[in-house]
Amino acid sequence: MKPVNNISAEEPQTDIYSLACPSRKALELVGSKWALLIFPALAAGPMRNNALLRKIEGISQKMLTQTLKELERNGLVTRCNLETAAPHVEYELSPLGESLSDTLIALDNWAERHHADLQRAREQFDRDEKAGEQVAGRIVHKLR
Amino acid sequence: MKPVNNISAEEPQTDIYSLACPSRKALELVGSKWALLIFPALAAGPMRNNALLRKIEGISQKMLTQTLKELERNGLVTRCNLETAAPHVEYELSPLGESLSDTLIALDNWAERHHADLQRAREQFDRDEKAGEQVAGRIVHKLR
Repeated sequence: MKPVNNISAEEPQTDIYSLACPSRKALELVGSKWALLIFPALAAGPMRNNALLRKIEGISQKMLTQTLKELERNGLVTRCNLETAAPHVEYELSPLGESLSDTLIALDNWAERHHADLQRAREQFDRDEKAGEQVAGRIVHKLR
Repeated sequence: MKPVNNISAEEPQTDIYSLACPSRKALELVGSKWALLIFPALAAGPMRNNALLRKIEGISQKMLTQTLKELERNGLVTRCNLETAAPHVEYELSPLGESLSDTLIALDNWAERHHADLQRAREQFDRDEKAGEQVAGRIVHKLR
């Protein structure tokens, strides 16, 4: 029996490894440096601009504004203009944004849990490389 | 009852939102543009340089070499020099790298599944913004 082909004629097959596939641009947006922190931050609930700026250390106002605008434009974040006496704007994840936040929280948690393993590996690698260079250096010396 | 504090005195608390926390650098490494594709590619099994270069469209040899070296240095990828007549080098995920690959596969799958939703949202946003500008333009005109 031939496998059932679920791909309709109108919908071209997506392939993240293909440079031209629009999924690649989507990955670059949601995997961008600041999106990886904005999604998990907003997963806890709506936040104002200043609260995000305080929480995500190192982001500039310009980058925060740009990233939020691009996430809003792509339907991942909703900008809520609350009707209060003073202007009050909040950002929250859309249902589409929420469908991604667990994955990005898992990624952030992995980095928090394993950064020390990476550091140990780096130190070992650099020691080995240095020792290797010294050995190579000695061999070169002997061959002269 | 007070909650049990799992953090030992020797291990400072990690916080991905803190700029100085080493977990931030770890996130930037594993969340970098090409790492997001190299991990899922290697999750299927060891691959040679040329196979990776063919699979991950758009990556240059220079970027592939740099990224693989940095992932190897951080203990996430293992470089295997197979003892064959011709030189034969393969790259594979280390157990530490494997502990991350499911999350990055989930991220890639999300991008493949939802890129069309993002595109629809973008088109709607751009239409709305254009319509808003036209309205704003008319108001400006009336006020002159």
